[in-house]
Amino acid sequence: MSNKTTVTESATDKQTLSQTEQHYFNSYDHYGIHEEMLQDTVRTLSYRNAIMQNKDLFKDKIVLDVGCGTGILSMFAAKNGAKHVIGVDMSSIIEMANKLVKLNGFEDKITLLRGKLEDIELPFPKVDIIISEWMGYFLLYESMMDTVLYARDKYLVEGGLIFPDKCSIHIAGLEDSQYKSEKINYWEDVYGFDYTPFIPLIMREPIVDIVENVNVNTTRSQLIEFDLNTVKLSDLDFKASFTIQAKREDWINGLISWFDIEFPSPEGKKPITFSTGPHAPYTHWKQTVFYLKDDLECEKGDILEGHLTCSPNKMNNRDLDIYLDYEFIAKGVDSERRSKKNKNQYIMH
Amino acid sequence: MSNKTTVTESATDKQTLSQTEQHYFNSYDHYGIHEEMLQDTVRTLSYRNAIMQNKDLFKDKIVLDVGCGTGILSMFAAKNGAKHVIGVDMSSIIEMANKLVKLNGFEDKITLLRGKLEDIELPFPKVDIIISEWMGYFLLYESMMDTVLYARDKYLVEGGLIFPDKCSIHIAGLEDSQYKSEKINYWEDVYGFDYTPFIPLIMREPIVDIVENVNVNTTRSQLIEFDLNTVKLSDLDFKASFTIQAKREDWINGLISWFDIEFPSPEGKKPITFSTGPHAPYTHWKQTVFYLKDDLECEKGDILEGHLTCSPNKMNNRDLDIYLDYEFIAKGVDSERRSKKNKNQYIMH
Repeated sequence: MSNKTTVTESATDKQTLSQTEQHYFNSYDHYGIHEEMLQDTVRTLSYRNAIMQNKDLFKDKIVLDVGCGTGILSMFAAKNGAKHVIGVDMSSIIEMANKLVKLNGFEDKITLLRGKLEDIELPFPKVDIIISEWMGYFLLYESMMDTVLYARDKYLVEGGLIFPDKCSIHIAGLEDSQYKSEKINYWEDVYGFDYTPFIPLIMREPIVDIVENVNVNTTRSQLIEFDLNTVKLSDLDFKASFTIQAKREDWINGLISWFDIEFPSPEGKKPITFSTGPHAPYTHWKQTVFYLKDDLECEKGDILEGHLTCSPNKMNNRDLDIYLDYEFIAKGVDSERRSKKNKNQYIMH
Repeated sequence: MSNKTTVTESATDKQTLSQTEQHYFNSYDHYGIHEEMLQDTVRTLSYRNAIMQNKDLFKDKIVLDVGCGTGILSMFAAKNGAKHVIGVDMSSIIEMANKLVKLNGFEDKITLLRGKLEDIELPFPKVDIIISEWMGYFLLYESMMDTVLYARDKYLVEGGLIFPDKCSIHIAGLEDSQYKSEKINYWEDVYGFDYTPFIPLIMREPIVDIVENVNVNTTRSQLIEFDLNTVKLSDLDFKASFTIQAKREDWINGLISWFDIEFPSPEGKKPITFSTGPHAPYTHWKQTVFYLKDDLECEKGDILEGHLTCSPNKMNNRDLDIYLDYEFIAKGVDSERRSKKNKNQYIMH
């Protein structure tokens, strides 16, 4: 299905409307998402810098942009020497992307196709480079990594490149006593009623929010790293272990996680990277907080070790099921009372 | 369809899962919405006060709670003397509501039914009072007023009461030069590309946000009032005129709108009301801003008059189409240059 066909079909659906109305009713639903993503300069400049730094690699290459949105990455690639860029997106935003590509003079260099990558036929049998901004909250929530892997396996030439190609999830301990207790205690008296059955429900929903780095009170542990050149879909269903160590006397009320991204740099230059961690500048991915059932009373040097299991929910595979088991090994003063072992389950939906 | 049946069906879908997992997988999707609504004390206390003030009216009455959510309004009604309350909601939140109703001892007083009101059979042929928190942004966006009217026409006894029963939409002028120009100018150079086709798109999306009252620089005008005792569904497709007057030398960059709510008070007491306007305390409905194509340079006393037309979008009746035509009549200094006439169209989606 070519983009032209899609546009025609869409106009046919609306054939009872005037031209002006057709224009008006084109549903660029959720343009606000694109505004937020573009205005995330950490994200967008990292892609631009990674492409600019590798200009020589992009020169005369065929590039596929998976989930192209407004076409910003396609235009970066075209501007930096690509022979041709194919952008694919399921959303009606592609109609806007088409306007932008023409307006900015890339009409001959960029072909935009609307649809699921799995359903459409590309104008080239193989591509040299895949670019994609596919990452979701906690890296994997509602992510498009599966489509990138499909694109890799079907279209990428042997030795082709994926921008970005390395990503890793990290975890650390978090002090958040006041907010956590307010969030929980609220349900004990809701306008005179007992709403405590809400508490377990709330505890199992990870929170996507900005965390102040000063509240991170343990060392960090890398949970898992994915190399997009070799990762398989089944690897996204994983169990990872972690060990973190308390850095001060404090409370550990939850775990915070984030992801780091790295672009290829085959020419030996320092690779472009960015982090969505609390120690790094703001990104729209923020951080993801998992409250623990326990509030762990820690002393410097205490150890928290455990496993995090992550898998797509079997009922709705856009949701993520996350299980966490941990053992908190307190040392020194009052260590027996402070040590804890527990299991938590979460769902991101 | 009774609630019991629904729960059984839902369990059947999940029959391959263990009991614990069933409990876990019950999708209380979007519980965060309920958290936000409960924590909106202006909203929730207004309902509580309106019911408490009219205790005598609720005594021994049959009450229907349309879109009952967690059941808070049903419990207010039961606690204040209702003979029986029926709560209806389409969402799986009703399973949580059932737990709360039992836990708080209202099992015999409250019956909760899951489903569309239009599809289910109530255990009573008629009800004395309808309570409902059905209001959306700009009052009507994704609102449940249609379901309340269905409930009124089918179930409410002659002379029965609707809580609340009066609502009105208001409009005023707004100075917001800096944010508006930043929001527009951003698209002129997006990482070196011309993204200006986004501008008309952005201009036609009303913005739901908190507006500082100090930025309101005209008198207010009531656009329309609905009396839920008599309003017809077709009245929600309306054209209303307004006239507002500048209160100072300033810019009018957009119009701000909000709604006010009033509960019945047949016993002659001062009715309970609340406002979602910028002059009133925060509510989760915030305010709705419509940017104008023009920035109007106003002097004290200048007049802005026009019409606002609001109707459900024909393609997707959850969306609202809003048309605004206006004439700005400047007086005094430089009035000819400053006077403007224009048309704007918006879509809330």
